[in-house]
Amino acid sequence: MARVVLNFSMSLDGFVAGPDIDMENAMGVGGERLHEWMFPPSGEKHPADAAMAEVTSSSVGAVVLGRRTYDIGLQHWGDTPFPVPSFVLTHRSEPDRQMKSASFHFVDDVRAAIASARNAAGDRSVIVMGAETAQQVLRAGLADALHIQVVSVLLCRGKRLFDDIGDTAIELRRTRAVAASPDVTHLEYDVLH
Amino acid sequence: MARVVLNFSMSLDGFVAGPDIDMENAMGVGGERLHEWMFPPSGEKHPADAAMAEVTSSSVGAVVLGRRTYDIGLQHWGDTPFPVPSFVLTHRSEPDRQMKSASFHFVDDVRAAIASARNAAGDRSVIVMGAETAQQVLRAGLADALHIQVVSVLLCRGKRLFDDIGDTAIELRRTRAVAASPDVTHLEYDVLH
Repeated sequence: MARVVLNFSMSLDGFVAGPDIDMENAMGVGGERLHEWMFPPSGEKHPADAAMAEVTSSSVGAVVLGRRTYDIGLQHWGDTPFPVPSFVLTHRSEPDRQMKSASFHFVDDVRAAIASARNAAGDRSVIVMGAETAQQVLRAGLADALHIQVVSVLLCRGKRLFDDIGDTAIELRRTRAVAASPDVTHLEYDVLH
Repeated sequence: MARVVLNFSMSLDGFVAGPDIDMENAMGVGGERLHEWMFPPSGEKHPADAAMAEVTSSSVGAVVLGRRTYDIGLQHWGDTPFPVPSFVLTHRSEPDRQMKSASFHFVDDVRAAIASARNAAGDRSVIVMGAETAQQVLRAGLADALHIQVVSVLLCRGKRLFDDIGDTAIELRRTRAVAASPDVTHLEYDVLH
Protein backbone atom coordinates (compact mmCIF):
# COMPACT_ATOMS: atom_id res chain seq x y z
CA MET A 1 0.00 0.00 0.00
CA ALA A 2 1.12 3.54 -0.69
CA ARG A 3 3.12 5.09 2.13
CA VAL A 4 2.30 8.56 3.44
CA VAL A 5 5.46 10.64 3.54
CA LEU A 6 5.96 14.07 5.09
CA ASN A 7 8.72 15.53 2.93
CA PHE A 8 9.96 18.97 4.01
CA SER A 9 13.02 21.19 3.89
CA MET A 10 13.38 22.43 7.46
CA SER A 11 15.85 24.77 9.14
CA LEU A 12 17.78 23.29 12.07
CA ASP A 13 15.46 25.32 14.34
CA GLY A 14 12.38 23.68 12.87
CA PHE A 15 10.94 26.16 10.39
CA VAL A 16 9.62 25.14 6.96
CA ALA A 17 8.75 28.71 5.88
CA GLY A 18 9.49 32.25 6.97
CA PRO A 19 6.88 34.56 8.51
CA ASP A 20 4.19 36.47 6.59
CA ILE A 21 3.37 33.91 3.92
CA ASP A 22 1.30 35.50 1.14
CA MET A 23 0.91 35.51 -2.63
CA GLU A 24 4.19 37.43 -3.07
CA ASN A 25 6.09 35.35 -0.53
CA ALA A 26 4.94 31.77 -1.00
CA MET A 27 7.72 30.60 1.36
CA GLY A 28 7.28 33.52 3.78
CA VAL A 29 9.83 36.27 4.25
CA GLY A 30 13.30 34.73 3.93
CA GLY A 31 11.86 31.24 3.57
CA GLU A 32 13.26 30.66 0.08
CA ARG A 33 16.57 30.13 1.92
CA LEU A 34 15.27 26.63 2.71
CA HIS A 35 15.17 25.67 -0.97
CA GLU A 36 18.60 26.99 -1.95
CA TRP A 37 19.96 23.45 -1.81
CA MET A 38 17.58 22.65 -4.71
CA PHE A 39 17.98 25.99 -6.49
CA PRO A 40 21.46 27.16 -5.50
CA PRO A 41 22.29 30.81 -6.29
CA SER A 42 25.48 29.54 -7.92
CA GLY A 43 23.36 27.35 -10.18
CA GLU A 44 25.43 24.29 -9.28
CA LYS A 45 23.48 21.72 -7.37
CA HIS A 46 25.42 19.10 -5.43
CA PRO A 47 24.98 15.78 -7.30
CA ALA A 48 23.96 13.92 -4.13
CA ASP A 49 21.33 16.55 -3.31
CA ALA A 50 20.05 16.53 -6.88
CA ALA A 51 19.78 12.73 -6.70
CA MET A 52 17.74 12.94 -3.48
CA ALA A 53 15.32 15.45 -5.04
CA GLU A 54 15.01 13.23 -8.10
CA VAL A 55 14.17 10.17 -5.99
CA THR A 56 11.40 12.16 -4.30
CA SER A 57 9.93 13.40 -7.59
CA SER A 58 9.92 9.97 -9.16
CA SER A 59 8.37 8.30 -6.12
CA VAL A 60 5.31 10.54 -5.82
CA GLY A 61 2.02 8.86 -6.70
CA ALA A 62 -0.39 11.38 -5.17
CA VAL A 63 -0.33 14.59 -3.16
CA VAL A 64 -2.38 15.79 -0.19
CA LEU A 65 -2.15 19.54 0.35
CA GLY A 66 -3.79 22.24 2.42
CA ARG A 67 -6.17 24.80 1.02
CA ARG A 68 -3.73 27.63 1.75
CA THR A 69 -0.88 25.82 0.01
CA TYR A 70 -3.18 25.31 -2.97
CA ASP A 71 -4.31 28.94 -3.08
CA ILE A 72 -0.77 30.30 -2.87
CA GLY A 73 0.98 27.57 -4.85
CA LEU A 74 -1.29 27.42 -7.87
CA GLN A 75 0.07 30.61 -9.44
CA HIS A 76 3.62 29.23 -9.20
CA TRP A 77 2.88 25.72 -10.44
CA GLY A 78 0.25 26.58 -13.08
CA ASP A 79 -0.52 22.89 -12.72
CA THR A 80 -0.71 20.25 -9.99
CA PRO A 81 2.46 20.44 -7.83
CA PHE A 82 3.58 17.04 -9.14
CA PRO A 83 2.06 15.38 -12.24
CA VAL A 84 -0.19 13.16 -10.12
CA PRO A 85 -3.68 13.31 -8.55
CA SER A 86 -3.70 16.01 -5.88
CA PHE A 87 -6.14 16.14 -2.97
CA VAL A 88 -6.84 19.54 -1.45
CA LEU A 89 -8.04 19.50 2.16
CA THR A 90 -10.76 22.16 2.43
CA HIS A 91 -14.11 22.81 4.04
CA ARG A 92 -15.46 24.38 0.85
CA SER A 93 -16.79 21.69 -1.45
CA GLU A 94 -15.73 22.21 -5.08
CA PRO A 95 -15.85 20.15 -8.26
CA ASP A 96 -12.66 18.46 -9.45
CA ARG A 97 -10.37 20.73 -11.41
CA GLN A 98 -8.52 19.20 -14.36
CA MET A 99 -5.04 20.69 -14.86
CA LYS A 100 -2.46 19.98 -17.56
CA SER A 101 -0.86 17.01 -15.80
CA ALA A 102 -3.57 15.73 -13.45
CA SER A 103 -6.60 16.79 -11.41
CA PHE A 104 -7.17 18.58 -8.15
CA HIS A 105 -9.82 16.93 -5.95
CA PHE A 106 -11.34 18.79 -3.00
CA VAL A 107 -11.90 16.79 0.18
CA ASP A 108 -13.14 17.99 3.57
CA ASP A 109 -11.66 15.38 5.89
CA VAL A 110 -8.03 14.42 6.44
CA ARG A 111 -8.74 10.68 6.68
CA ALA A 112 -10.80 10.72 3.49
CA ALA A 113 -8.10 12.75 1.72
CA ILE A 114 -5.36 10.32 2.75
CA ALA A 115 -7.48 7.28 1.85
CA SER A 116 -8.24 8.64 -1.62
CA ALA A 117 -4.62 9.62 -2.14
CA ARG A 118 -3.44 6.14 -1.11
CA ASN A 119 -5.79 4.60 -3.65
CA ALA A 120 -4.61 6.94 -6.37
CA ALA A 121 -0.90 6.45 -5.58
CA GLY A 122 -0.85 2.70 -6.08
CA ASP A 123 2.57 1.48 -4.97
CA ARG A 124 4.12 4.93 -5.05
CA SER A 125 4.11 7.47 -2.19
CA VAL A 126 1.61 9.99 -0.97
CA ILE A 127 3.38 13.30 -0.34
CA VAL A 128 1.86 15.80 2.10
CA MET A 129 2.38 19.53 1.44
CA GLY A 130 1.76 22.38 3.89
CA ALA A 131 2.79 22.46 7.55
CA GLU A 132 -0.71 22.55 8.97
CA THR A 133 -1.86 19.68 6.81
CA ALA A 134 1.22 17.71 7.89
CA GLN A 135 0.29 18.40 11.51
CA GLN A 136 -3.24 17.10 10.94
CA VAL A 137 -1.82 13.97 9.34
CA LEU A 138 0.54 13.42 12.28
CA ARG A 139 -2.19 13.99 14.87
CA ALA A 140 -4.40 11.47 13.09
CA GLY A 141 -1.58 8.89 13.16
CA LEU A 142 -1.59 8.66 9.36
CA ALA A 143 2.09 9.41 8.61
CA ASP A 144 4.29 6.44 7.69
CA ALA A 145 7.57 8.24 7.10
CA LEU A 146 9.29 11.59 7.52
CA HIS A 147 11.80 12.77 4.92
CA ILE A 148 13.38 15.90 6.34
CA GLN A 149 16.04 17.95 4.60
CA VAL A 150 17.69 19.74 7.51
CA VAL A 151 19.04 23.00 6.09
CA SER A 152 22.15 24.49 7.71
CA VAL A 153 20.56 27.69 8.97
CA LEU A 154 18.69 28.95 12.03
CA LEU A 155 15.78 30.83 10.46
CA CYS A 156 14.73 32.16 13.91
CA ARG A 157 11.12 32.82 12.92
CA GLY A 158 8.39 31.60 10.61
CA LYS A 159 6.23 28.50 10.36
CA ARG A 160 7.25 25.45 12.36
CA LEU A 161 6.68 21.99 10.93
CA PHE A 162 6.34 20.17 14.25
CA ASP A 163 3.95 22.33 16.24
CA ASP A 164 0.71 21.34 17.91
CA ILE A 165 1.14 17.68 16.92
CA GLY A 166 -0.35 16.17 20.08
CA ASP A 167 0.64 15.30 23.63
CA THR A 168 2.14 11.86 23.19
CA ALA A 169 5.68 11.23 21.98
CA ILE A 170 5.93 9.62 18.55
CA GLU A 171 8.78 7.15 18.16
CA LEU A 172 10.80 7.17 14.95
CA ARG A 173 13.52 4.99 13.45
CA ARG A 174 16.07 6.65 11.22
CA THR A 175 16.29 4.64 8.00
CA ARG A 176 18.65 6.85 6.02
CA ALA A 177 21.01 9.80 6.43
CA VAL A 178 22.74 11.51 3.52
CA ALA A 179 25.20 14.28 4.32
CA ALA A 180 26.81 15.44 1.10
CA SER A 181 26.88 19.21 0.67
CA PRO A 182 27.41 21.12 3.95
CA ASP A 183 24.18 23.08 3.40
CA VAL A 184 21.69 20.25 3.85
CA THR A 185 21.40 16.90 5.62
CA HIS A 186 18.80 14.44 4.35
CA LEU A 187 17.26 12.46 7.22
CA GLU A 188 14.64 9.78 6.62
CA TYR A 189 12.59 8.14 9.35
CA ASP A 190 9.91 5.53 9.66
CA VAL A 191 7.12 6.43 12.07
CA LEU A 192 6.70 3.57 14.56
CA HIS A 193 3.05 2.95 15.30
CA MET B 1 41.12 30.52 21.63
CA ALA B 2 38.52 28.27 23.22
CA ARG B 3 35.43 27.70 21.08
CA VAL B 4 31.96 28.07 22.54
CA VAL B 5 29.89 24.98 21.72
CA LEU B 6 26.19 24.44 22.24
CA ASN B 7 25.99 20.68 22.75
CA PHE B 8 22.47 19.28 23.14
CA SER B 9 20.47 16.12 22.58
CA MET B 10 17.35 17.34 20.77
CA SER B 11 14.26 15.56 19.50
CA LEU B 12 13.57 15.93 15.77
CA ASP B 13 10.83 18.40 16.74
CA GLY B 14 13.30 20.60 18.61
CA PHE B 15 12.87 19.79 22.29
CA VAL B 16 15.80 19.36 24.70
CA ALA B 17 13.62 18.52 27.71
CA GLY B 18 10.07 17.51 28.43
CA PRO B 19 7.54 19.76 30.18
CA ASP B 20 7.35 20.42 33.94
CA ILE B 21 11.06 20.40 34.76
CA ASP B 22 11.58 20.19 38.52
CA MET B 23 13.80 18.56 41.11
CA GLU B 24 12.21 15.14 40.51
CA ASN B 25 12.24 15.50 36.72
CA ALA B 26 15.51 17.19 35.83
CA MET B 27 14.83 16.50 32.14
CA GLY B 28 11.10 17.27 32.38
CA VAL B 29 8.34 14.69 32.04
CA GLY B 30 9.45 12.14 29.44
CA GLY B 31 12.62 14.10 28.69
CA GLU B 32 14.97 11.32 29.76
CA ARG B 33 14.06 9.74 26.39
CA LEU B 34 16.54 12.18 24.85
CA HIS B 35 19.46 10.63 26.72
CA GLU B 36 18.64 6.99 26.03
CA TRP B 37 21.31 6.92 23.33
CA MET B 38 23.85 7.60 26.12
CA PHE B 39 22.13 5.42 28.72
CA PRO B 40 20.28 2.78 26.71
CA PRO B 41 17.71 0.70 28.60
CA SER B 42 19.38 -2.40 27.14
CA GLY B 43 22.68 -1.25 28.65
CA GLU B 44 24.43 -1.62 25.29
CA LYS B 45 25.57 1.67 23.89
CA HIS B 46 26.37 1.84 20.18
CA PRO B 47 30.19 2.15 19.90
CA ALA B 48 29.95 5.14 17.52
CA ASP B 49 27.60 6.96 19.89
CA ALA B 50 29.81 6.14 22.86
CA ALA B 51 32.79 7.51 20.95
CA MET B 52 30.97 10.78 20.21
CA ALA B 53 30.05 11.23 23.87
CA GLU B 54 33.65 10.51 24.85
CA VAL B 55 34.99 13.14 22.41
CA THR B 56 32.66 15.71 24.00
CA SER B 57 33.69 14.83 27.54
CA SER B 58 37.38 14.98 26.77
CA SER B 59 37.12 18.28 24.89
CA VAL B 60 35.43 20.28 27.63
CA GLY B 61 37.60 22.95 29.22
CA ALA B 62 34.91 25.00 30.95
CA VAL B 63 31.13 25.12 31.34
CA VAL B 64 28.64 27.98 31.28
CA LEU B 65 25.28 27.04 32.75
CA GLY B 66 22.04 28.68 33.80
CA ARG B 67 20.97 29.16 37.39
CA ARG B 68 18.04 26.78 36.98
CA THR B 69 20.26 24.07 35.49
CA TYR B 70 22.61 24.54 38.43
CA ASP B 71 19.84 24.39 41.04
CA ILE B 72 18.29 21.26 39.57
CA GLY B 73 21.50 19.56 38.38
CA LEU B 74 23.58 19.89 41.52
CA GLN B 75 21.80 17.08 43.37
CA HIS B 76 22.44 14.72 40.45
CA TRP B 77 26.07 15.66 39.82
CA GLY B 78 27.15 16.16 43.46
CA ASP B 79 29.99 18.01 41.76
CA THR B 80 30.56 20.30 38.79
CA PRO B 81 28.84 18.81 35.68
CA PHE B 82 32.26 18.17 34.12
CA PRO B 83 35.53 18.24 36.08
CA VAL B 84 36.32 21.78 34.89
CA PRO B 85 35.63 25.38 35.99
CA SER B 86 31.89 26.04 35.74
CA PHE B 87 30.32 29.49 35.39
CA VAL B 88 26.75 29.90 36.60
CA LEU B 89 24.79 32.74 35.01
CA THR B 90 22.76 34.34 37.79
CA HIS B 91 21.58 37.71 39.07
CA ARG B 92 22.30 36.69 42.67
CA SER B 93 25.94 37.32 43.49
CA GLU B 94 27.53 34.45 45.41
CA PRO B 95 31.05 33.47 46.42
CA ASP B 96 32.81 30.75 44.43
CA ARG B 97 31.91 27.25 45.52
CA GLN B 98 34.69 24.65 45.51
CA MET B 99 33.46 21.17 44.58
CA LYS B 100 35.33 17.88 44.42
CA SER B 101 36.56 18.32 40.82
CA ALA B 102 36.48 22.07 40.24
CA SER B 103 34.75 25.29 41.27
CA PHE B 104 31.45 26.95 40.49
CA HIS B 105 31.75 30.68 39.79
CA PHE B 106 28.68 32.94 39.79
CA VAL B 107 28.51 35.60 37.08
CA ASP B 108 25.68 38.02 36.31
CA ASP B 109 26.33 38.73 32.62
CA VAL B 110 26.45 36.36 29.68
CA ARG B 111 29.40 38.10 28.01
CA ALA B 112 31.40 38.08 31.22
CA ALA B 113 30.54 34.42 31.81
CA ILE B 114 31.64 33.41 28.32
CA ALA B 115 34.82 35.51 28.54
CA SER B 116 35.81 33.95 31.88
CA ALA B 117 34.98 30.48 30.61
CA ARG B 118 37.08 31.01 27.46
CA ASN B 119 40.02 32.03 29.62
CA ALA B 120 39.60 29.02 31.87
CA ALA B 121 39.19 26.57 28.97
CA GLY B 122 42.52 27.29 27.29
CA ASP B 123 42.52 25.45 23.99
CA ARG B 124 39.62 23.20 24.93
CA SER B 125 35.92 24.00 24.44
CA VAL B 126 33.41 25.95 26.45
CA ILE B 127 30.19 23.94 26.74
CA VAL B 128 26.90 25.73 27.39
CA MET B 129 24.22 23.94 29.45
CA GLY B 130 20.55 24.90 29.72
CA ALA B 131 18.27 25.94 26.86
CA GLU B 132 17.70 29.49 28.05
CA THR B 133 21.39 30.09 28.60
CA ALA B 134 22.06 28.72 25.11
CA GLN B 135 19.48 31.15 23.73
CA GLN B 136 21.21 34.08 25.47
CA VAL B 137 24.54 32.96 24.03
CA LEU B 138 23.04 32.73 20.52
CA ARG B 139 21.33 36.12 20.78
CA ALA B 140 24.62 37.68 21.87
CA GLY B 141 26.39 36.15 18.85
CA LEU B 142 28.78 34.25 21.12
CA ALA B 143 28.29 30.69 19.85
CA ASP B 144 31.00 29.25 17.61
CA ALA B 145 29.59 25.79 17.01
CA LEU B 146 26.46 23.67 17.49
CA HIS B 147 26.79 19.98 18.28
CA ILE B 148 23.29 18.57 18.09
CA GLN B 149 22.39 14.95 18.72
CA VAL B 150 19.10 14.62 16.85
CA VAL B 151 17.15 11.89 18.65
CA SER B 152 14.72 9.80 16.60
CA VAL B 153 11.56 10.85 18.37
CA LEU B 154 8.94 13.59 18.20
CA LEU B 155 8.61 14.61 21.83
CA CYS B 156 5.61 16.88 20.98
CA ARG B 157 5.98 19.10 24.06
CA GLY B 158 8.58 20.45 26.43
CA LYS B 159 11.43 22.92 26.26
CA ARG B 160 12.64 23.98 22.82
CA LEU B 161 16.32 24.67 22.26
CA PHE B 162 15.90 27.17 19.43
CA ASP B 163 13.23 29.53 20.69
CA ASP B 164 13.38 33.30 21.02
CA ILE B 165 16.86 33.45 19.49
CA GLY B 166 16.39 36.72 17.60
CA ASP B 167 14.93 37.99 14.33
CA THR B 168 17.83 37.50 11.95
CA ALA B 169 18.70 34.19 10.32
CA ILE B 170 21.97 32.66 11.49
CA GLU B 171 23.91 30.84 8.80
CA LEU B 172 25.60 27.54 9.65
CA ARG B 173 27.97 25.17 7.90
CA ARG B 174 27.69 21.48 8.67
CA THR B 175 31.14 20.19 9.53
CA ARG B 176 30.29 16.64 10.55
CA ALA B 177 27.45 14.14 10.46
CA VAL B 178 27.59 10.76 12.16
CA ALA B 179 24.64 8.41 11.67
CA ALA B 180 25.43 5.12 13.36
CA SER B 181 22.63 3.79 15.54
CA PRO B 182 19.13 4.53 14.17
CA ASP B 183 18.19 6.31 17.41
CA VAL B 184 20.45 9.35 17.09
CA THR B 185 22.15 11.43 14.41
CA HIS B 186 25.11 13.57 15.44
CA LEU B 187 25.19 16.84 13.51
CA GLU B 188 27.96 19.39 14.01
CA TYR B 189 27.88 22.92 12.64
CA ASP B 190 30.08 25.98 12.64
CA VAL B 191 28.20 29.23 13.22
CA LEU B 192 29.10 31.65 10.41
CA HIS B 193 29.52 35.17 11.76
